[in-house]
Formats: sequence, structure tokens, C-alpha cells
Amino acid sequence: MNNSEISEQGKLTIVGTGPGTDQLLAPAAKQALLEADSVIGYKTYVDLIRHILPESCDIQAYGMRQEVERSRAAAALALEGKKVCIVSGGDAGVFSIAGPVLEVISEEDLEKLNLSIIPGITSALSSAALLGAPLIHDFAVISLSDLLTPTELIEKRLSLAAEGDFVVVLYNPASKKRTELIKKCAQIMIEAGRKDTPVGIVRHGFRADQNVTVTTVSEMLNHDIDMNTTVVIGNSRTYRKGRFMVTPRGYAL
Amino acid sequence: MNNSEISEQGKLTIVGTGPGTDQLLAPAAKQALLEADSVIGYKTYVDLIRHILPESCDIQAYGMRQEVERSRAAAALALEGKKVCIVSGGDAGVFSIAGPVLEVISEEDLEKLNLSIIPGITSALSSAALLGAPLIHDFAVISLSDLLTPTELIEKRLSLAAEGDFVVVLYNPASKKRTELIKKCAQIMIEAGRKDTPVGIVRHGFRADQNVTVTTVSEMLNHDIDMNTTVVIGNSRTYRKGRFMVTPRGYAL
Repeated sequence: MNNSEISEQGKLTIVGTGPGTDQLLAPAAKQALLEADSVIGYKTYVDLIRHILPESCDIQAYGMRQEVERSRAAAALALEGKKVCIVSGGDAGVFSIAGPVLEVISEEDLEKLNLSIIPGITSALSSAALLGAPLIHDFAVISLSDLLTPTELIEKRLSLAAEGDFVVVLYNPASKKRTELIKKCAQIMIEAGRKDTPVGIVRHGFRADQNVTVTTVSEMLNHDIDMNTTVVIGNSRTYRKGRFMVTPRGYAL
Repeated sequence: MNNSEISEQGKLTIVGTGPGTDQLLAPAAKQALLEADSVIGYKTYVDLIRHILPESCDIQAYGMRQEVERSRAAAALALEGKKVCIVSGGDAGVFSIAGPVLEVISEEDLEKLNLSIIPGITSALSSAALLGAPLIHDFAVISLSDLLTPTELIEKRLSLAAEGDFVVVLYNPASKKRTELIKKCAQIMIEAGRKDTPVGIVRHGFRADQNVTVTTVSEMLNHDIDMNTTVVIGNSRTYRKGRFMVTPRGYAL
């Protein structure tokens, strides 16, 4: 490839920006953002990184539920030769924008694009770090959003996770309109004998207005749970120690 | 708290160092390492960060399977007033050292310690970023190490994860001595009708000797799978696109 071809080639980078503090933004992610001609993303996540973007950067902040539009816009700009970052909070590969981006790009365009994905710290991990050590044994990560997934499949997965005594991490646990599945989840866990199991609820982990609560399955619905919350339900052996929840691995102590 | 008390207080920080490249080490993790009097960890992970540690740092590199000893040593030093980092590759909270550390510290000592946990990019995320977008729907993370977990429980969880059509991420998939469970896993997935399901195998992701393969369940055992490998098995809808695997979320395209 000669220099003129390099200078004309666009680049699409899918960037996970982590929990929302510069202290947990990977250097690779920061570098990609600093070099971008355009940064595209959901407004909330774009706002969390806006202060590090250069003045020359074309910033495109979208509303909710425009994942497909955002993905097409990012791919089109990169195919025109721009350096484009499409961003997501946490890790773009966990229930997030890396999916629709790869879905909308044709295989032919994919070969033309210089596509790379930079992983980020997803909220299962940031929440677990604030809660102690809940993810030391097998765990299932389940989204309670039924916008694109049948309710029956979500309930089935919750039941199987309970049967397998997995630690369970819930993404999108509830919204103003969606309040039933989190109740159903609590019911499934109680029926599986886990009413006293520790549950961690983390809102805006590692941001200024962070809120961390450790409660139990039977009490969890008495706490605020919304779209900005991650819920971590321990397995049958998870216990509390001080302000933390701990899932033992089985070491002889 | 007055200054003399501050100067005497130790600090224990549990640090996830990510995949093993400075480009994916969080600034918060780097800062904690730079300020540490002592850094303790499994040799492989200590070696990956040794170049950024100051000369004055007391470095304690341990062999395998000494998690409890490492944890006790770190806690003891911090209680003596040292600034201590105990490190793990990836995220210390996923099947790793955050567990034994919290298990061995008494509740009384825990209150004395200035304990914090810095999350890192675990191999499920770094592997997924290299594989495309496999984790866009519900997934289960399962360790195939039966050193501390009954084989029957691991097999049960694999079967339930297959029944629930979870994407499955395998940690510690095989070692020189442990080769049976990965075979059993392939068999469980084939019996669940997933022989053609894409499988990603990532070794040393984001390091110089990185190796990324996309294959299928029926072919996966023909590839090298060892303790340095992470295996990502798609769900029934996961497909290949170019060099990537994609799990669709269900958007109307």
C-alpha cells in the first residue's frame, strides 16, 4: 500500500469508554478518540468523554434506540475515508453497539474498512469491584430488556441460571415502563431457595454520584432499580463480609 | 484523621492489569502500581507490568496455586502500614485473586484496611473484541477448572447454559492434565444442536504473540486449547461475517 492509499483510507474504531471516569478509560481508547475525525454515540456516553475530544472533532450525539442509524452513519463516514470512533459506555461488545455495527456492514464493506474494537470495563466488572468479590465463580449475564427479546426467553434463562446456581448479573434491570421482569426475577430466585442470598445494586459506579447497596433477594425490590443500575445476585454460597459480598472459590483457608 | 495517622495507614489495592498491554491498563491501575511499596502476584502477571514499577518497589512474584499465601502476605503488609498492590491479569474479580483476598481477611482487619479494587478488562471482553461481537446477547462465563469445583457441577452448568441458548465463555478450558471437560463441553453443545455454531478461540489476546481463530463447535477440538486460551461459543443465532463472529441482538435492519 503506498502513501496516497494510506492517507485516503478511513478507519472505524468501536470504543468502549468504561464506567465514565478518565481513570478507567484505557489508553488505547483515549488515543483513538484523540485521533478521530468523528465521534458518534448515544448522548449520555458522548457527554462523558466530550472533555477529552479535540475541538476539530465532529461530534454526533444521538438519542436512545437509534443503534442502527448510528451504526450506518459511522460506517458510511469511515467508508468516505474519515477516522471514526463509535462509542459505548462500558464495553461496546456487551449488549451494545459492536453488534449493530457488525450487523449493518456488508461483508464487502467490512473488507474495505480498517475496523478495530477496543474493549472497555463493562458494568458487570466495575460493579463487582465496588461490591467486593461476587464474580469469583461461574456467572450469567442477562439483560432484562424485552424490547428485542421475548419475555419467555428471558424468564427461561433466569430459571436455568437459578437452577445452575450461577451468580447472575442483570443489565437493563428495569425502566419506568418495564418493572415486571425484575419482580419475576426476584420470585424465581426465591423459589430456588435464595431469598437470603446477597444482592448488590450499583448505580453510576465510579462516577461522582455513585451509589452501592448490598441487600438480599427478598429485600431487593425495596431499593431503586432503574436503567442506570446493575444488579448482581450471588450464588447459594455468596456471603457478606463488612460492606462487601464474597463468592468463595473453594480454597482451603 | 491527622497527618501522622495518615502516614502510618497502610493501603491494600487489588488491581486487575487487563490483557497484558500498557494500552489496555487503566490509568487508575497504573497510578496504584506506581505508588505501591509492594507489588504481589502470580509471576506471569507481575512480569507483564514489571517495566512500569519503580526501582524502590518490593516485587513479590509467586508461583501458581498459592492464592491463599499471596492474599495473606498482601494483607499482612498492608496492616503493617505499607501501600500494597496485589495484582491479577485481566480482572482480579473474575475467578481471581479478589476472592481469596476477601476470604482470608477477618472482618475486623477489613475495617482497618484501606481496601479498594480496581477493575480490569477480563479475557471474556478482550477476546470478544478480537472476535467481533459475540457477547451482544445473554452469556454465561464458566471455568472448566475442576481443581476446586466438582466436575458434575461444571457439566450441569454447561448443560443448562446450552439449554438456555446462552453464549458461553470458557475460562481455564484445558491444561496438560485436564483435557476431558473441554471434550465433554463440545459433546454437550453438539447434543444441543449446536455443531455448526461459531466458536472463537483466543490465545494471549492483545499481546505480541496473539492468536485468534474462529471455528465451529464440531471442529473446536482440532485447535490448540490450553490455560492461556479463552473459548467463546456462540448461541444458536451467532453467525460468521468475514473474520468475525456476530451474535445478533434482534434489531430490524
